[in-house]
Formats: sequence, C-alpha cells, structure tokens
Amino acid sequence: VPGRSFALARAPIASTGRLQEAPAHQQLLKRHNLALVLGHLAGAPNLSRAQLAAGTGLTKATVSTLVCALVAAGLVVERDPARGLIGRPGSPLALNAEGPAGLGIEINVDYVSACVVDLTGTVRLRDKIVSDNRLVAPEAVLDRAAQAATRLVAKAEAAGLSVCGLGVGVPGLVDFDGVLHRAPNLRDWEGIAAAEVLRDLIDRPLRSVYCDNEANLAALGERWFALSEDTADFVFVSGEIGVGAGIVIGGQLFRGVRGLGGELGHVTVDPNGPRCSCGSRGCLEAVAGREALLASAGLALGGAGARGGTEELVSRAIVGEPETLVALNNAARAIGVALAAFLNVLDLPTVVLGGFYAELAPWLIGPVTDELAVRVVNSSWSSTEVVASSLGDQASVKGAAGITVRRIIDDPAELFPEVLGKT
Amino acid sequence: VPGRSFALARAPIASTGRLQEAPAHQQLLKRHNLALVLGHLAGAPNLSRAQLAAGTGLTKATVSTLVCALVAAGLVVERDPARGLIGRPGSPLALNAEGPAGLGIEINVDYVSACVVDLTGTVRLRDKIVSDNRLVAPEAVLDRAAQAATRLVAKAEAAGLSVCGLGVGVPGLVDFDGVLHRAPNLRDWEGIAAAEVLRDLIDRPLRSVYCDNEANLAALGERWFALSEDTADFVFVSGEIGVGAGIVIGGQLFRGVRGLGGELGHVTVDPNGPRCSCGSRGCLEAVAGREALLASAGLALGGAGARGGTEELVSRAIVGEPETLVALNNAARAIGVALAAFLNVLDLPTVVLGGFYAELAPWLIGPVTDELAVRVVNSSWSSTEVVASSLGDQASVKGAAGITVRRIIDDPAELFPEVLGKT
Repeated sequence: VPGRSFALARAPIASTGRLQEAPAHQQLLKRHNLALVLGHLAGAPNLSRAQLAAGTGLTKATVSTLVCALVAAGLVVERDPARGLIGRPGSPLALNAEGPAGLGIEINVDYVSACVVDLTGTVRLRDKIVSDNRLVAPEAVLDRAAQAATRLVAKAEAAGLSVCGLGVGVPGLVDFDGVLHRAPNLRDWEGIAAAEVLRDLIDRPLRSVYCDNEANLAALGERWFALSEDTADFVFVSGEIGVGAGIVIGGQLFRGVRGLGGELGHVTVDPNGPRCSCGSRGCLEAVAGREALLASAGLALGGAGARGGTEELVSRAIVGEPETLVALNNAARAIGVALAAFLNVLDLPTVVLGGFYAELAPWLIGPVTDELAVRVVNSSWSSTEVVASSLGDQASVKGAAGITVRRIIDDPAELFPEVLGKT
Repeated sequence: VPGRSFALARAPIASTGRLQEAPAHQQLLKRHNLALVLGHLAGAPNLSRAQLAAGTGLTKATVSTLVCALVAAGLVVERDPARGLIGRPGSPLALNAEGPAGLGIEINVDYVSACVVDLTGTVRLRDKIVSDNRLVAPEAVLDRAAQAATRLVAKAEAAGLSVCGLGVGVPGLVDFDGVLHRAPNLRDWEGIAAAEVLRDLIDRPLRSVYCDNEANLAALGERWFALSEDTADFVFVSGEIGVGAGIVIGGQLFRGVRGLGGELGHVTVDPNGPRCSCGSRGCLEAVAGREALLASAGLALGGAGARGGTEELVSRAIVGEPETLVALNNAARAIGVALAAFLNVLDLPTVVLGGFYAELAPWLIGPVTDELAVRVVNSSWSSTEVVASSLGDQASVKGAAGITVRRIIDDPAELFPEVLGKT
C-alpha cells in the first residue's frame, strides 16, 4: 500500500566494508542508498557528485556507482557542467523531467479530472470533464475517464515522457486493496477496483496502480504540492457534494486501522438532523455538503449546475446578503462540530479546508475556529490552525498523479528494480 | 515515552560473525537479542536454553550468554531441572516473579488506587481508598496517594520484590512529558507532573516513572491483563464521572499527534445539549457520564456516594424499571454517537466498555451497537464489536503498574543497562 509505505530515506546505512558475504544485506543497503541519493536530488537539484557525497555521507565512489544506475534507468540526468573560472566543475545532476511520469485520475460526483506529473513534480498536462456522474453507469464513467487518460498519455509520450504509474481518486470508501466499496453519492459503484479497470482500458504497461478515496489523495496533493515541508500533521477537508477528509500524520497518510477511516462527512453533527445519503441522520455532509449548503442559502440548483451555485453563493456573501451569511455561519458551525470530534481523537495542529470550502474560506475559517476553541477539550494547550487549500479542485488529481512520482523517489528500486543491477 | 516506544522483538538480527569491529552495531544486536529472549520467556515460561535457542533462532552459545546476563540482573531465574527418565534435562528458565516489580497508582475523581505487579504480570498487592477528591487540594490527594504507595512498596519489599518503576494514571489531559494540563472534574490540577511528585514523596530509587491519562492506562491494562493477544486494535471507553478513551493500534497506545488525543468524553453528541465541565455544550460526558446518567435516571446522589447510585441503577435495570431503562437507552445512544465519530476516523474493529459502563453493559451493548451500525459509514464492510471490560475498576491501575513490567520485557537494557555488560 503505497500511501502507507512511503518512507523517506534520511541517513545512510554505514557500510563496514565487510559485508560482501551478505548479499541480501548489501542489496538492502544499495536500495536504501539509492533512495537516499534520489531523495537528495529531489530536495536540491543540480548537485554535483561531490556535493551529493557530502550531503548524504556516502563516499564519492559509492555515489558515482549509484548515480550511474539511476541515470541508466532514466531517473536522473546529467547536465552540461557550468563553466567555472577555477577548477573543474562537477556535472550537475537532477531528476529527469523527461523521464518516468505519473498519471492521476479523479472521478468525482460531477466531474472527471486527469493530469500527468513528471518526476520533478511539475504538472505537465491536465484535463477536466464536467458531467453529472450520479445517474450514469460506472462503466460509462470509467470509459470516459479512460478516454481522457489515453489522450493525456499519448500527449505525454509525444513530449518524451513515459507514464509508468496510475493513481485514481474516487468519492467513496476504498479499502487497502484499492476496491471501492461504496460511493454514497454515485449509483451502483460497489466492489469496483477502479484503478485496475482503468489500467486495462488505458492498455499501457504500468509499473504501479493505486486507488484511494479522493480526500486521501487530495491530502497527499496538499502535502506534496502546496504545504510547507514541516506541515507533516494535518487533516484535509474535502468539501464537495460529498464531504470527506484525508489525515496525514508524520507526513504519511493515516487511513485508519482497516483503511476505511477519515470519514469526516459522516460524523453526526445533529443526531436528529436531516437524512444523509449513507442512511444515517445529521451527518456533516447532509447538513453542510455543497448541495445542503446551497439549499439552505436558497440556491438549490443541484447536479452539474451546482458549481454555478457556488459562484452565486460567493457573490452574495461578498455583498453581505443576510440569508447567505446565516447559511454559511450554520455550515461553519457544523464543520466545527465534526472537526472537533476529529481533533479530540487525533490532536492535530492543522486543518486545511479544500474543495468548495476553500472558495468559502473567508466566511468559514472564523466560525470554524471559534467552534474548535470551545469543542476541542485540549484547544488551550494544543491549538489548531485552520487554513484554506490553494490547490482548488486540483488537490486530489495532483495527489493521484504524485503517488507514482513519490513511490519512485522514496524507493526507486521498488518500481525500477533494474537500478539494483545484477546481484 | 514508553507507551509509544514499546516494540516487541520478534526476529533475531542475524550475526554474520564479522561484526566484532563494529561495537555500536554489536551492542544494538545484543540489546535486541536480550529483548528477544526475555520476550520468549514472557510468552512461554519454563523453557530450557535449547528450547529458547530453537524458538528464537539464536545459537545455544548466544542464548547462554544472554541468559547469564538476565539472571545476573535478577530478571530471569533458573529452576531446578525436572527429573526426566531419559537424557539430561535442561534447567527451566522463567521470568523472576520475586525480582523487579512495577508500582501503579490511579488518582481518579472519587478514589485513589494502587497496586504492585511482578515481572510475570501477576498483581501481588493492591489498595483502594474511596474519597471525593474534587474539592481537595492536589497536594493533599498526592500525599494520600504517596502514603498508600509507600505502604505497598514496604509490603512488596518484605515479600522480596524490588519496586523499580512507577506508573500514574490521572483523570485529565496529560502531555508526552507526563504533565497534567487539566482535569475537568478536579479543582486546581493544572501543570502537575504527578509521577515526578509521587517519585519524590515515595523516596525510593526508581528506574522509570510514567504519567498518563487514566483511560490510556486502562486501555493498556486491558491489552496486557484481559484481552486476547490478537486484539491489538481497539478503543477502551472509560466511563466514570469523566468519560475518556484509550486507543490502541497495533498493540501500541495511540495518543494523537501531540499526545492529547483520545478525548471521547468531549465529543459533541448534541450541539445544544447541557453544559459540560470543560466549557463546551453537549459533550458525551455531560450527557452520559456517571453523574449525568444517574441524574437522568432519577438517582442524583453525586460525589463518593455515586458508586452506591450505580448499584441502585443496576438493581432497577434488572427489574425493568421504565425510567431507568429509558435513561440507559438514551445514554447508550449518546455513547453510540460519540463512538461513531471515533470509528469514522479510526476504523477500529473493537470497542471495550470500561468503568461503570462495564457494569451497565447488558443494557448498553445492544443500543450502542445499533447506533454504530447506522452512524459509522463503513459499518457494512468493517463491523465493530462492542464488549465489556472484565477488569472492573482495576484496568487503569493495572495498566499503570504494567507499564514498568512491559518496558523491562520489551527492552531490558533500557532500565537495566547492566545486562549489556562492559563493552
């Protein structure tokens, strides 16, 4: 499970020079050090071999051997040395921006997104198809997603990239095996291994596929593409028609013990509240999901038109329309009640509001923060900052594409065993 | 932080026979293997050196060296060999039940408990002082606890035990440094490092002290003294005047990112519900804590008399008194709403109802389970079993005493560095 196994290589395993008789150990050592070198290049591009050796604590000879393997596998490129005035400059090394790339697909209630991210983390291509997927058969939605993906892969190949992994975000409960059990806001999406289906439809040799809840992938998108490196513990709130959350602890996705945790949208905020699509009553999603919020503000458009409704809601909030402000305040209080439960469990320092909640952040952050101060019992000693996502609706699809890239950087030998050589 | 660092040693680190030049590595190896041997003896007493070697994968020579160090430190004893008919039987080895012991103290709202547990996990001594601590100064309560502890330590010494560590449970928010920040149901308990204070008052040389929330220690008590080995993921609910929870994931305590998580009692179950002692409204504790539940059943005794109230409540429930049954059902629904939030976050397979909730389990388990089935969105795929604690009010104090014992077994060199010898 990639979301759980990402481990950053921070320190070298010191070789005693005596381990030649223990090939398994040596293989592990090489694997670790390959990750160490690639991780250093990901953090600081254009390092020379000597700088890499100094930064990692490995010998120059070892660095040279490892770099050679990484270049041969297409993960690292050697640039022309800069012309220095004094001495012979080392050739600068960097991640190969024209090499392996990750494809991300997000299937949501009212759109399908796709993007391609290269090894340096740059989004190279993207596409978004707006459509109401609620009453469409899963096969038809997956076909549409596969067509969009196939177009992007062809463009990526034309640009010299090699798409080698796929990440898929879906709006529902996904287990550790990548099977979607239930999508409360989509019809008939049950027991579908969406990434496997898409792998077959796209028909390209892929080294890895991964499927997860869209909120979990959005949390990883925030971690990798938006937040500072030291924001390693946070909950990302995905406010769309459905409301979800992705929890990151110590930089790693925390999916709960059996993989189906993080369900903020179905925390009860009012035991006698409105019916929810999940069958319960008074879930956050039923009270403050996009459709519920638009309806309570007198803007019940529904379906694919709801995005327009959000714009209208923002316009009315800006001019201070009273019914809109009351609806936003009530939604914020409900978000605060549900988030307080999460924080009473997890004691996290940061909340990132994403999806359409990010657009409404100016009206939500204040009352959400007030509610947390009252309802989180540890708030006086462990306060929590509430911030808005800066990724818009791109968090999840970027996280989905980033999965492949992070897997490669965190352990290149996992997807590219050729870097270990023949031993 | 012992609750987070406990790691069971399950496999040997294979020595290549070439590591004599790497003393740091060898020291680590010995430390690991000492834990491995002690852990095996904890799981299966009366093993011979040969059986230990077979079970751990270590050589007999290594096992003999390690056993020698563990015997010298007083952690392991060698018994007289059983007289076999054929061959020379090995001397059976076992944890030393007359050696190092752990002292546990639980300070709660209306009682102070203490107990001593020997290295085999047997409770050797215990004491409980019922008193309403709510209006008593912290110093006076700590003095009382220290007196009880000193008496037990003297008795333990008279029995040949050596109390070498202290665990303290308190009903409030305790950080990773063991400082109690706030105890909503006690007055003036703020910023108190209770274990350090008690260490000074008891005035014995202790190798370790640890302080934590009583619910966290109770969860460990359940894990070590009651539940089956394979129940490694669960939430323990501590129902007393305050309501708390201890979360165990993968056999380890999960305290949240900053240590102040697991606060089930302050999850909102009704946003407009009654005021809670924490300052919020509609917390589970305010709706279904012991005093709230007794009051709603028409049995508002309060204070130290509340225990009697619980017995009366049980008597009335047994005869089916309608007001009592309604109050219990309402409490169960509230417990279900709060627990559902925890399970929506954590996706745990087991809930253990403890404290006075355990006594009321026959009336709580059904409606709590029903509520979880509705309110946990993943319940159809990841169901959760609700069971009652069998430890009564002893879970927390046993966990507090067990902390020291588990630390020793999981890594004997941590508290007994003499087992590493002079290298």
